[in-house]
Amino acid sequence: MANLFQKIRKGLQLYQQIDMEALEKLAAKVDLNAVVQNVSKLDDTQLQGVMKLLSGSGGHKKKVPPPVDGDFYDLAELLTPEQRALQLKVRAFLETEVQPIVNEYWLRAEFPYELIPKLAALNICGVTYQGYGCPGLPNIMEGVLAMEMARIDASIATFFGVQSGLAMGSIYMLGSEEQKQQWLPAMQQMTCIGAFGLTEPEVGSGAAGGLTTTAKRTPEGWVLNGQKKWIGNATFADVIIIWARDVDDNNVKGFLVKKDNPGFQAIKMEDKMALRIVQNGLITLTNCQVAETDRLAKANSFKDTAEVLRMTRAGVAWEAVGCARGAYENALAYTTQRKQFGKPIAAFQLIQNHLVEMLSNLTAMQTMVFRLSQLQDEGRLTDEHASLAKVFCTLRTRDIVSRAREVMGGNGILLQYNVARFVADAEAIYSYEGTKEINSLIVGRAITGFSAFV
Amino acid sequence: MANLFQKIRKGLQLYQQIDMEALEKLAAKVDLNAVVQNVSKLDDTQLQGVMKLLSGSGGHKKKVPPPVDGDFYDLAELLTPEQRALQLKVRAFLETEVQPIVNEYWLRAEFPYELIPKLAALNICGVTYQGYGCPGLPNIMEGVLAMEMARIDASIATFFGVQSGLAMGSIYMLGSEEQKQQWLPAMQQMTCIGAFGLTEPEVGSGAAGGLTTTAKRTPEGWVLNGQKKWIGNATFADVIIIWARDVDDNNVKGFLVKKDNPGFQAIKMEDKMALRIVQNGLITLTNCQVAETDRLAKANSFKDTAEVLRMTRAGVAWEAVGCARGAYENALAYTTQRKQFGKPIAAFQLIQNHLVEMLSNLTAMQTMVFRLSQLQDEGRLTDEHASLAKVFCTLRTRDIVSRAREVMGGNGILLQYNVARFVADAEAIYSYEGTKEINSLIVGRAITGFSAFV
Amino acid sequence: MANLFQKIRKGLQLYQQIDMEALEKLAAKVDLNAVVQNVSKLDDTQLQGVMKLLSGSGGHKKKVPPPVDGDFYDLAELLTPEQRALQLKVRAFLETEVQPIVNEYWLRAEFPYELIPKLAALNICGVTYQGYGCPGLPNIMEGVLAMEMARIDASIATFFGVQSGLAMGSIYMLGSEEQKQQWLPAMQQMTCIGAFGLTEPEVGSGAAGGLTTTAKRTPEGWVLNGQKKWIGNATFADVIIIWARDVDDNNVKGFLVKKDNPGFQAIKMEDKMALRIVQNGLITLTNCQVAETDRLAKANSFKDTAEVLRMTRAGVAWEAVGCARGAYENALAYTTQRKQFGKPIAAFQLIQNHLVEMLSNLTAMQTMVFRLSQLQDEGRLTDEHASLAKVFCTLRTRDIVSRAREVMGGNGILLQYNVARFVADAEAIYSYEGTKEINSLIVGRAITGFSAFV
Amino acid sequence: MANLFQKIRKGLQLYQQIDMEALEKLAAKVDLNAVVQNVSKLDDTQLQGVMKLLSGSGGHKKKVPPPVDGDFYDLAELLTPEQRALQLKVRAFLETEVQPIVNEYWLRAEFPYELIPKLAALNICGVTYQGYGCPGLPNIMEGVLAMEMARIDASIATFFGVQSGLAMGSIYMLGSEEQKQQWLPAMQQMTCIGAFGLTEPEVGSGAAGGLTTTAKRTPEGWVLNGQKKWIGNATFADVIIIWARDVDDNNVKGFLVKKDNPGFQAIKMEDKMALRIVQNGLITLTNCQVAETDRLAKANSFKDTAEVLRMTRAGVAWEAVGCARGAYENALAYTTQRKQFGKPIAAFQLIQNHLVEMLSNLTAMQTMVFRLSQLQDEGRLTDEHASLAKVFCTLRTRDIVSRAREVMGGNGILLQYNVARFVADAEAIYSYEGTKEINSLIVGRAITGFSAFV
Repeated sequence: MANLFQKIRKGLQLYQQIDMEALEKLAAKVDLNAVVQNVSKLDDTQLQGVMKLLSGSGGHKKKVPPPVDGDFYDLAELLTPEQRALQLKVRAFLETEVQPIVNEYWLRAEFPYELIPKLAALNICGVTYQGYGCPGLPNIMEGVLAMEMARIDASIATFFGVQSGLAMGSIYMLGSEEQKQQWLPAMQQMTCIGAFGLTEPEVGSGAAGGLTTTAKRTPEGWVLNGQKKWIGNATFADVIIIWARDVDDNNVKGFLVKKDNPGFQAIKMEDKMALRIVQNGLITLTNCQVAETDRLAKANSFKDTAEVLRMTRAGVAWEAVGCARGAYENALAYTTQRKQFGKPIAAFQLIQNHLVEMLSNLTAMQTMVFRLSQLQDEGRLTDEHASLAKVFCTLRTRDIVSRAREVMGGNGILLQYNVARFVADAEAIYSYEGTKEINSLIVGRAITGFSAFV
Repeated sequence: MANLFQKIRKGLQLYQQIDMEALEKLAAKVDLNAVVQNVSKLDDTQLQGVMKLLSGSGGHKKKVPPPVDGDFYDLAELLTPEQRALQLKVRAFLETEVQPIVNEYWLRAEFPYELIPKLAALNICGVTYQGYGCPGLPNIMEGVLAMEMARIDASIATFFGVQSGLAMGSIYMLGSEEQKQQWLPAMQQMTCIGAFGLTEPEVGSGAAGGLTTTAKRTPEGWVLNGQKKWIGNATFADVIIIWARDVDDNNVKGFLVKKDNPGFQAIKMEDKMALRIVQNGLITLTNCQVAETDRLAKANSFKDTAEVLRMTRAGVAWEAVGCARGAYENALAYTTQRKQFGKPIAAFQLIQNHLVEMLSNLTAMQTMVFRLSQLQDEGRLTDEHASLAKVFCTLRTRDIVSRAREVMGGNGILLQYNVARFVADAEAIYSYEGTKEINSLIVGRAITGFSAFV
Repeated sequence: MANLFQKIRKGLQLYQQIDMEALEKLAAKVDLNAVVQNVSKLDDTQLQGVMKLLSGSGGHKKKVPPPVDGDFYDLAELLTPEQRALQLKVRAFLETEVQPIVNEYWLRAEFPYELIPKLAALNICGVTYQGYGCPGLPNIMEGVLAMEMARIDASIATFFGVQSGLAMGSIYMLGSEEQKQQWLPAMQQMTCIGAFGLTEPEVGSGAAGGLTTTAKRTPEGWVLNGQKKWIGNATFADVIIIWARDVDDNNVKGFLVKKDNPGFQAIKMEDKMALRIVQNGLITLTNCQVAETDRLAKANSFKDTAEVLRMTRAGVAWEAVGCARGAYENALAYTTQRKQFGKPIAAFQLIQNHLVEMLSNLTAMQTMVFRLSQLQDEGRLTDEHASLAKVFCTLRTRDIVSRAREVMGGNGILLQYNVARFVADAEAIYSYEGTKEINSLIVGRAITGFSAFV
Repeated sequence: MANLFQKIRKGLQLYQQIDMEALEKLAAKVDLNAVVQNVSKLDDTQLQGVMKLLSGSGGHKKKVPPPVDGDFYDLAELLTPEQRALQLKVRAFLETEVQPIVNEYWLRAEFPYELIPKLAALNICGVTYQGYGCPGLPNIMEGVLAMEMARIDASIATFFGVQSGLAMGSIYMLGSEEQKQQWLPAMQQMTCIGAFGLTEPEVGSGAAGGLTTTAKRTPEGWVLNGQKKWIGNATFADVIIIWARDVDDNNVKGFLVKKDNPGFQAIKMEDKMALRIVQNGLITLTNCQVAETDRLAKANSFKDTAEVLRMTRAGVAWEAVGCARGAYENALAYTTQRKQFGKPIAAFQLIQNHLVEMLSNLTAMQTMVFRLSQLQDEGRLTDEHASLAKVFCTLRTRDIVSRAREVMGGNGILLQYNVARFVADAEAIYSYEGTKEINSLIVGRAITGFSAFV
């Protein structure tokens, strides 16, 4: 082999290449010769892998991860500049005003009433309606804003959906001009809060044709009797729209019931594990008297009620998208920070696999609801279009929030990491405004021609 | 066609067959002729279907559903009569003492301390240990009892697992005879409560080889410094086993720290969305002094700690089985009571499909953990055996609780229906004592021969 | 009770309502009184259900199911009228020329060469290229046409993708002007067929940077040695683009090898269970001499090859969409025809659930690839955009074809029902041009900043 | 910094540690100083990781992977030594006689008739029956042997199941003593091959109560008319058991039809994509005359037929287990051999995840069917027990074979790698002897008390 002089000469050459101090420190820790021997046996591909790894590992500490953004296919580009600006304004509000307090309120199952005037100041309530102070935006923006709210908190999105969509929407679509003038401007300003009383203890929202709450015409107006369950905002709403069956003609009609009506009582539902900020009420109507002028003028049968539901149903799909997006973005950020085995967990294959499954579903969901709102803006939205999106988006959201929690390990069950709440809330979104089963059967009927409900 | 007399004659014949009053009432509601026409067009199979349906529908009200039992393959049969009796005794305790109060405690995130003496009275603590007052049962019974507890409440099962398994187990396996005499009898009686401090804020349970909490030998004994996170029972335990790295020899050692040690502080972790009854603590050790006699005598390296974990890991799989079983049984009972569209939802194909998916997984899980405990009782249990069961059972449990909630619709998010809590708790079980990823890599290494942790 | 005269009077009234003959026939088959008794016990909702069922059952025979169309959100509306017309023209070609013969060729693993001139006559080859006889369409149309082909047969879509995309694309993007003039017009007319030789026995398409086939510069040109596997069209192509590593500078370069080159041999791969119509070849290059003029002029490193792959990758996602759409449409049509228990299986909840799961995924896939092609037409397509769509669409396609087969029961494994072939072919699409794992890691690197390939 | 002499001295010290030649060669390939700098920045954990990786990478070539065995929980231990020996004998037969030829036969859709005498020589036919030359083994062994056959080829397992289970079983359970003596000994020796004709073109096996094939009593015996589809072995069987409805009493009866009966015709079903070795026939019976002595003496209604089906149904679950096990074992072996990026793919997290998902399901399936056969041996097997196992095992098998194919990338679609065939065959097993839907509804009825078939 090489003699000593050659060795020295080569040693000197290597000195010019290598930081000798670093090498010495290394030699104290590892068997340098074993390293050299092992490395020598690698083929070029393996060698490249190791070199990449080394430069990678060494660099982990300083590496700035790419910005976290759940809009991977840049759908925001499809908005007008004004729409995009509004989206970002609402996002900023959510991030600065809602995010810091939301976990605490959720844990206590209380509603942050102080947010209402701030939310009103965004001037987005009654998103798509014309007149009465409403912004008159296209349906796509109703979706985008629902997504932005749910991205931070699904309860706030639900509160807004009840106020702006279900309650105001019922009056906007089915009220007389006098009723609209009376209620909509104040509701748009959120100085008057509304609720929507349809679901009953034994009648789920998907089976709402079979309502048992009754309305009886009297000389003085109407008398309502029955119970409503799950009614969002019911414990503090100023006006609650109650849907009841007219015992005389058997048709479902709508009534504007004011909070101080002595025949009206709402009890907060206490033991929810999801959407805990939403104040769901169990309403009991006991000979509740309502004037004929407080009957929704154009609500003559359940078909009219269904009209309102169709209008708002697309919003639930968007809400699911927001919930999924929030969970994904928080999970991604976490994985680039959290380290195990000496490197960020985002660098592990198993974690990347979760992240990519999440993102692929999230991206598909976003392209789907964009098209859904396009159809709505073209006036072509059908029940089955909306039901399909609701089924797909809420199903995929469940998967996304579940993976988001999983990549966080145990920390995923702590509210402070901003994923646990989404895991719980996704369950409520999955089942409200028609379960997966009911919505699937709506689509199934449309594509097969056969009704399979019973 | 037939003339009038023939008609009358036939009419009279029909009178002998038909309850005319009932028919008349029916005629007031439906177009009888349309019915007859439609029914006439049916072929025999269809006709049979309709008849079955009619007798079925009419009978729904009286029908007594089969008894709800998640042990579909009757594995209880494999126990001895004494073991079976113990199982049923523990079940009765859970159903009468725990079930009625558990949702309320879970909601408030508090521990039902009043249960401890009653639990102690069952005399099952320290299930498999010999001596010190322990019952000395086979491992299969440790599993069966964990299942029974988690079937009603996973938090109570976890509390028991920490006390009986991790805390007592550490002392039983790694303590000196003096230490055993000092602690085990009182712990078996639950007059002394234990905790097990391994996990750290930056070191998950799966990566516990890299502990950062330090132990330094001093003339007076030892000084501990560092933090522990997620430590169950830590806020009220009398003795906490702290695992720390000896700065002198770099080995992990175990210390018995008493609750009133001034260097010990435990703060309750408040914002959990799962296992809310379990009192997890964030422990801070600040120059915490411990006597040499309170060092676990036979815990000389992390290998010894791992010994304890292996012993208890099978129990987590059983706990998942219990959690899944509780959710399934509650969901099944609900679906036979809850009606929509005029019949129990259990009679719908989509609901039965969920129930059968649940039951098939649940049955597979049960047969799997029975075999696992058999291997354990034969002394052949390996880490990879336990990890595989943990992965499978916790993954399937997630699916089962999710379907259980789904069949309940919105009611599934209310604690009172006894599924929502399991949905949340399953997330904790899924990730504790090694995430799915870590456990998968343990099995992966065993079957491929390659370690893929980093 | 009522006396006889009353009975007779009522009987006569009922005669005016009921078709007595039909009733008599019915009475011969069922216990009429039991029916009346049972029906009387029903509440109104139940009664409505039964009536609906009866009118439904009776009507099954005549019912015309809604038209089968997998474009549930009408994305075709987004095309121009000319584009839409071309889509329908290509669809008609596939349905009339390909569909009738495709199962037979698939079964025999042979290629229907007679289709080539007919396919050429559609004048769509080289979809997006400018000049050389190519149609110069936007990328969205490349996607739409790939979907239309795969909707009937994924093998034909693959054949076309190799010819129009990979082979012509390599020349179009990396050839000299002389090379383009020499090859592209004939290839556009399909009088010259091309192939694309990249993958090797030990080097999957995702790891193609590590090619082992060598190219050595000689005074006369180049000498190629090595093997290529899985090369579509290779057994009958006129020109095969071979990618090889230049032993002198270690860079990957591309070569146009003609079929009659004595150093070139292609053996058909015989035992495939998927895409059996595609003629994949195992190519052996033995001192294969190629002129310098047949070296792709602008292919100087693997980066250039990757350029071609990026261009075509979106097409694979579209192909998966087509495959899924074909399976869904065939399955839906089948379920409205096939009867069990006396009614079309499309009327069962469990079948509708499968159909809706398929449709929801299919619709999401379609909206996703539309956006993908929009990005491509805007010149903003990245590798990770395409990889995400490939992962999502091929994964969902697997699920869709699997359900399509399931609703067909045993018939689903018979080729004649036009789903079995899709089930097999989906497996090939899932893994080619980068497995799910490789594509996931490409996206994972983009979103986390960490490479996790090794 | 250190002066030159120090450098030289240290250099000389390092010479004693390092193989200088190897280092020099390495220096030619990589920037040694960058390596040292990067490595120096690693913390100890990272450094250990790199060292492990290096020694790992270098060592991959020599590493002997652990033995491949799908029985992870060693259930074979539960067999008696004689049973275990028989299991291994049958396994050896399959591995040496069947494995080498099976792909070729499958591809050609032909049956390897030459195997029949060899299979007969194992003397296992009529596994559980007493007398007539049958081995009289417990049911657990019927399961174990079905698993062993399907582990190599599901078609052979199906052929055996038809012969030993359905055909011989019908005679054994429902034949007269004369019929048993006439047929069983020869069938046990496989010199006489049987088939079982139940399913019809429009009547799936799950709905077999509604058979349309007719039997009419005549002075000379019986006349059969109708069609049977999917009948395994029908094209070459010596005797075919035909189930037909007696037009006089409407009950289903069984008939032994000999292959040369002029009223019997069987046409091979040609275009199957699964179980291609099984020769399924479409049988047409045209005034097929059968003697009264060839009517199964004890088959008086469909209830008797169902008895046979119950007996064999557990076997299908075991067959699914075998199919899954074969796929898993082949996939695992492949991943330890196949390299990408310079190491066996079994060393990647994403691949290990697939393997562990497979193994966890496979292990659960095995423990489940063991318990199922225990119940059977105790005489406690119900339809719903068997249906549950069929649903679970065939569903999980689908997942396992799908992952097995996935880890093989493109090679997974080549028959030679011994997974593609299982992928296809799993589809047939999934749907035969009752689809997942039918079996789920059988279990659903048992647990809820409600029939949801129609």
